[in-house]
Amino acid sequence: MTDSGVRGADVPELDVPEPDGHKPGVRGADVHDMRLSRLHGSLADPAMASMNFLNEVAIRFPNAISFAAGRPSEEFLDFAEVHRYVDVFIDHLRRDRGMTEAEAKRTVLQYGRTKGIIHELVGRHLEVDEGISVSSDSLVITVGCQEAMFLVLRALRTGPRDVVLAVSPTYVGLTGAARLVDLPVRPVRGGDRGIDFEDLGVRIAEARAAGLRPRALYIVPDVANPTGISLDLEARRELLRVAEAEDLLLLEDNAYGVFAGEGRLPSLKALDTGRRVVRLGSFAKTVLPGARVGYAVADQRVVDEDGGTSLLADHLSTIKSMLTVNTSPWSQAVVGGALVAHDYSLPAANRREIEVYQRNLRLVLAGLARRFPRDAERGPRISWNTPTGGFFLTLTVPFRADDELLEYSAKEHGVLWTPMSHFYGGDGGYEQIRLSLSQLTPETIEAGLDRLAALIRECSATR
Amino acid sequence: MTDSGVRGADVPELDVPEPDGHKPGVRGADVHDMRLSRLHGSLADPAMASMNFLNEVAIRFPNAISFAAGRPSEEFLDFAEVHRYVDVFIDHLRRDRGMTEAEAKRTVLQYGRTKGIIHELVGRHLEVDEGISVSSDSLVITVGCQEAMFLVLRALRTGPRDVVLAVSPTYVGLTGAARLVDLPVRPVRGGDRGIDFEDLGVRIAEARAAGLRPRALYIVPDVANPTGISLDLEARRELLRVAEAEDLLLLEDNAYGVFAGEGRLPSLKALDTGRRVVRLGSFAKTVLPGARVGYAVADQRVVDEDGGTSLLADHLSTIKSMLTVNTSPWSQAVVGGALVAHDYSLPAANRREIEVYQRNLRLVLAGLARRFPRDAERGPRISWNTPTGGFFLTLTVPFRADDELLEYSAKEHGVLWTPMSHFYGGDGGYEQIRLSLSQLTPETIEAGLDRLAALIRECSATR
Repeated sequence: MTDSGVRGADVPELDVPEPDGHKPGVRGADVHDMRLSRLHGSLADPAMASMNFLNEVAIRFPNAISFAAGRPSEEFLDFAEVHRYVDVFIDHLRRDRGMTEAEAKRTVLQYGRTKGIIHELVGRHLEVDEGISVSSDSLVITVGCQEAMFLVLRALRTGPRDVVLAVSPTYVGLTGAARLVDLPVRPVRGGDRGIDFEDLGVRIAEARAAGLRPRALYIVPDVANPTGISLDLEARRELLRVAEAEDLLLLEDNAYGVFAGEGRLPSLKALDTGRRVVRLGSFAKTVLPGARVGYAVADQRVVDEDGGTSLLADHLSTIKSMLTVNTSPWSQAVVGGALVAHDYSLPAANRREIEVYQRNLRLVLAGLARRFPRDAERGPRISWNTPTGGFFLTLTVPFRADDELLEYSAKEHGVLWTPMSHFYGGDGGYEQIRLSLSQLTPETIEAGLDRLAALIRECSATR
Repeated sequence: MTDSGVRGADVPELDVPEPDGHKPGVRGADVHDMRLSRLHGSLADPAMASMNFLNEVAIRFPNAISFAAGRPSEEFLDFAEVHRYVDVFIDHLRRDRGMTEAEAKRTVLQYGRTKGIIHELVGRHLEVDEGISVSSDSLVITVGCQEAMFLVLRALRTGPRDVVLAVSPTYVGLTGAARLVDLPVRPVRGGDRGIDFEDLGVRIAEARAAGLRPRALYIVPDVANPTGISLDLEARRELLRVAEAEDLLLLEDNAYGVFAGEGRLPSLKALDTGRRVVRLGSFAKTVLPGARVGYAVADQRVVDEDGGTSLLADHLSTIKSMLTVNTSPWSQAVVGGALVAHDYSLPAANRREIEVYQRNLRLVLAGLARRFPRDAERGPRISWNTPTGGFFLTLTVPFRADDELLEYSAKEHGVLWTPMSHFYGGDGGYEQIRLSLSQLTPETIEAGLDRLAALIRECSATR
């Protein structure tokens, strides 16, 4: 599933001057070629090459057991159900919204409203599942959560003084979107609680002292990608206080909250009384990855020079109109239909999936404990955290678990995982591993953990 | 279909200092509010407000006859057909690609390949319909043509010296995407032939003299939006020569070529022997606007510092992975199915639509000629061009046809059209009108032209 280039193609050896007087300065270039240095800086970023490497490894070793994939389970994917969701949505337009056939067709098949056609249904879902009450005008339906991140970061970046803070390790999608608008991402230590408030204070002060403007803090409060950590309630409240005092927006990515398990805590947006939180959402894990539908809740008020006010959501919409025009209504219909069919509740829509992910989490935790007992006198000193749910957990090992070791692991042990360093921007996390459990079965978990344990024992012994 | 703000909401009059020591300096701001000046410059651009105005007028006067809408006809939209196209694509995966059921489900319903899943089918369509032969690796399937524009402009903009040239009047989607990456768009006169080569030379020299790097020229060679003009064959060939000599990419937007009518000429990409053309395509007008599927053909080779080569398409894919991850496979399935069902030929898939648009064009041209005979001794001196097809034509009037007149026209005459000045970045085109014919019927054309003629006579008399 990677997009391979054509490296190593047979290219004549030329060294012709370019029209503007420069020489290409590279072997193998001809006059028709472009130079990478003449393309946007994000494209020469080592982080991008490293993401490609992860994809390539997975493709080169198709028979390896993968603790690396972050994709939802494919067990319940069903063509007929997806067609049916579309029809449920169309029926909803006819019955509940009183649309004529022509209006329904226009809504689902024609160009659509930039902010989306399922905003009211998503608003109801947020009310039903999380007690979040926002006007549906504050919602922008996006091409996955990724576009929502881009829209917000594009809006916030006005010049070189703007920076965004992100709890580290950070989901690479945030780092990538920031790179596209040349917005620096400054890491804030996450630690075991999910956020280190002392470090947050230091980072804000440091940025201000350097003449920079920290605009927002990106955080995944529920069973985070990549760590699996959730913030406790006090940390959530403290975060909102800090955001208020420091004039920061909180960019809350909550793609996995539905799978957080027993005792899920209120989301940041549910606790937000001061319009400090922009909620970034995804239906990729809860309805259908292939629909590519996400959203932003942006109820912040924006005041212009004449004192006129508007919603941040409207400005995100303006950016979206220049980026993707609108999110495919045909895809939105799938999500809208799923919401209607399950009375706006995603836990209800995901009963089977929640069971699978919780089972896998239990099996991975128990399997690790069995293979690496805590009271063992010998054996490698490894540890792991115990998320309440979600797709991921963090394994800490006493050796360097980097891309090189991953390649070895795939080739010699037939098991894939993700070096946590990818989520530290290549600066840290070298002794941590992200284990993903969303696409496993009881059988692949046992076999995969055996392979992983063999690798760990080997690396610990040779250390 | 506009996204209205909340202007005029009841906001308390406060003037509190902001945390960073600035005062809001605006009426109606409170401490929770953000300031527009702290959001990206594109959001304060008058061009954006002006686009919103066009949408608002259409909504405020729903009973006006509209020569303004650029959307495809809704006459043949059909839910069952769209479902069927999806199923045709799934069958194609099973039969022609030999996929198992699990593989087919993964392809259409799971996260997908960043460059898309219908690249081979789109490649075949380009071969069948236009004689374009490119490797399907050179194709990136995008969220409409708009995302394709953004990807290319993002890749090309490395710093403040880069600029893009665009034939003026210019489709606003290009201008908007460029604004998002702070890339200046420098206009090149289009004139009656579609491009003025003398002006092109002057603009390139001018930019270079100012220390700038013109990276590309954006052009719609077939029945352009907004003018309806097509380039003749000699102009196409000359354009490729200039691009080669001046080291420019040509960004060919060809969203309407299928509707260009008799004697459609080879597209720029079909004539391109030196990899000078990046083709930007859309299926919004030819398959389904609600699918939001477009593409870029970018077979340019990119050489890195070590002499390694890659395709520009792969770099666009890297940007896409940070922007929208991948284009909804569920939406791509609609387009893929339509291509398979019609043997990869879009003229075949659009027989009925082509007839409707050609009929409407004939009726509008005849209706104008009847109402404003050329040999009339009296009457307003108006003129219009005669496109071979497409959605648009240009009307030139002897008075200022701006937003103010549009508002008057909607209110007093019940007819909508688009002031051409919107496509000149607010700097020119004030005596031109874009007439769109894609959503009209013989009845609305006659009634609408009567209304338009009344407006024109009134304005010409009072001039």
